[in-house]
Amino acid sequence: MKKIFDVLLTHNEFKAEAFIKELEGKKPLFVCTIATTETAKIQGISAAGKHPEFTDYTPPADAELLLLGRCKCINGVPVTPDGIPTPALITMSALRLADIPVLVASGGLKVKPQIPFLELGGSPGEDIRTGRAVENVEEVIQRATLAGEHLAKTADYLVIGESIPGGTTTALGVLSAMGVNAKGKVSSSMPENPHELKNETVKAGLAASGLSFGSLAENPVKAISCLGDPMMPAFAGLVIGAAAQVPVLMAGGTQMTAVLAVVNALNPDVLCNVAIGTTRWVVSDSSSDICGIVAHIADVPVLAADIDFAQSRFSGLQAYEKGIVKEGVGAGGAAIAAMAKVGGAVTKDILLKEIERSYALLVGTK
Amino acid sequence: MKKIFDVLLTHNEFKAEAFIKELEGKKPLFVCTIATTETAKIQGISAAGKHPEFTDYTPPADAELLLLGRCKCINGVPVTPDGIPTPALITMSALRLADIPVLVASGGLKVKPQIPFLELGGSPGEDIRTGRAVENVEEVIQRATLAGEHLAKTADYLVIGESIPGGTTTALGVLSAMGVNAKGKVSSSMPENPHELKNETVKAGLAASGLSFGSLAENPVKAISCLGDPMMPAFAGLVIGAAAQVPVLMAGGTQMTAVLAVVNALNPDVLCNVAIGTTRWVVSDSSSDICGIVAHIADVPVLAADIDFAQSRFSGLQAYEKGIVKEGVGAGGAAIAAMAKVGGAVTKDILLKEIERSYALLVGTK
Repeated sequence: MKKIFDVLLTHNEFKAEAFIKELEGKKPLFVCTIATTETAKIQGISAAGKHPEFTDYTPPADAELLLLGRCKCINGVPVTPDGIPTPALITMSALRLADIPVLVASGGLKVKPQIPFLELGGSPGEDIRTGRAVENVEEVIQRATLAGEHLAKTADYLVIGESIPGGTTTALGVLSAMGVNAKGKVSSSMPENPHELKNETVKAGLAASGLSFGSLAENPVKAISCLGDPMMPAFAGLVIGAAAQVPVLMAGGTQMTAVLAVVNALNPDVLCNVAIGTTRWVVSDSSSDICGIVAHIADVPVLAADIDFAQSRFSGLQAYEKGIVKEGVGAGGAAIAAMAKVGGAVTKDILLKEIERSYALLVGTK
Repeated sequence: MKKIFDVLLTHNEFKAEAFIKELEGKKPLFVCTIATTETAKIQGISAAGKHPEFTDYTPPADAELLLLGRCKCINGVPVTPDGIPTPALITMSALRLADIPVLVASGGLKVKPQIPFLELGGSPGEDIRTGRAVENVEEVIQRATLAGEHLAKTADYLVIGESIPGGTTTALGVLSAMGVNAKGKVSSSMPENPHELKNETVKAGLAASGLSFGSLAENPVKAISCLGDPMMPAFAGLVIGAAAQVPVLMAGGTQMTAVLAVVNALNPDVLCNVAIGTTRWVVSDSSSDICGIVAHIADVPVLAADIDFAQSRFSGLQAYEKGIVKEGVGAGGAAIAAMAKVGGAVTKDILLKEIERSYALLVGTK
């Protein structure tokens, strides 16, 4: 697979190459979109928190880590039940190495971060099995679009990431309602991807809202309202507002495909300015298929940061090579942006050294 | 008085000239800091609302106007009791002419705007006669500083404005607590400046908090907590965070002197990167003395947009020439930034035409 910097041109190689070359030496703004959903508390759905109830704290803690270099709403940093630390460590390290500014945007949160954040008028999400997952979707999309329009004037391009536990299940929900078959293709923060549990959860949500596969192909707002999460309207609006003016790197794993489907249904014209940026762990994951889902939605490129923790001196980072965590908090996109901004000054090796430094400081010595 | 573009070098001419020349052709970000205080509801204190109770709606409505070109939380636009419209019309027109991006930051609000805004963790302010005017001052300063640090990386310089009815009275409060004699020198949105009422209000606040003139010269956080308003910690933090990296134009009238005193006490080093930008109506006001107050605090320049509504075809704009409103929502600073960004493409005459267009659309035909 072709590489530019330490970035893999994973899907739609020609466009991917043009996209990454356009970013070279340019100044990005990183926006981290955070939200919570009760869906994350279904036992076995998400590893983005030590216990299911802790998932309410993961997004605000991730956001605090990006801005402060430490968390305030929790001790330490967010971890999986096995103690593997948040990918925000990668994001933070990449952004710091390349001196990239960060803005946090809330789509709807149970717990507010103790840092400045952009309020977009959303509320925390409900369990999608109720069929009433997100309130106020249209209004949040409008506000986020307005924010995206203004933020696009402050940077050469935007990198937009997310932190929302349970997000691949809600992604499957929205994709299903919109008629994109992603069964068995969404990723997971766990090494054993609980596809059956996700399918059952989405099936229950479709039934509760009186929907069937594809019945909302033309209605992304309702698809989010019934089966999505509050990160989505915030993220989609930011993309729509910004990509009309500047390139936008959608930084995340398979969750990005649901946002892509929403943007494609609302404003397909902006997609000529959009790419998905993720990690090698996502694109090489045999239990999911990000490129396969993207190919069913729109002709956008996928890039992947070639990050490698195999040689790390910390077992908590080596675990990423076993398929734990994989992506989140825009880790892959932030790494890509850092590499593109300063070229050879940030390679995968330099990035690993910085991540290890952060790890030693914030997590421990193992 | 020397002029560059249509900007008057009002105070500290040498530095003022260097400052405006540094901004020429550069790309600013405009940040509008909004907050409310119960102090504005003292009868006769503020004209920034049709009735005192309406002052809760003025800041969010001003912010909506800047971002949307219309208000959502009220019908029409904010007006004085005599129906004279908000200076946000000037700000909006200037920013649009020069395509300057806007971010709204909340210091603490009774009524939230229906647009994206930066949440800084503050609460609405109390009447300063209680001596307990603002909560959580230190935390808001810290969060705003962090926001300022990141925003400084997204623009060549920052223009920071404010909308808070009652703000000149709280400014007098903080200045008095900090030992800057501003009695009879703060400005007013009314043609008859109610100095006595402001002095009495501040005197009551000093008494209620067991303070005397100058007793908090070294403690700006407590000065705001006792006698200030929630715009101040947000504004001061933004200045401190941003001016360490880029020039900052503090856009406002005599309220800016209180923020200046706070910044000067907390971090005087950044003031080499700071100027105050206001309107001709403020600097030529015989019932106040912005330059006199500034001279007692720090050696920063004052610039004034030479806006002139004498020849306007609308009586609601001509009223500005009689000393009504004068400044607010960063009107003067936004006009200065627009002129500096695009040079001769925005003159006082072109700006007036655009303001009249907005006026006709939003206010009426008189």
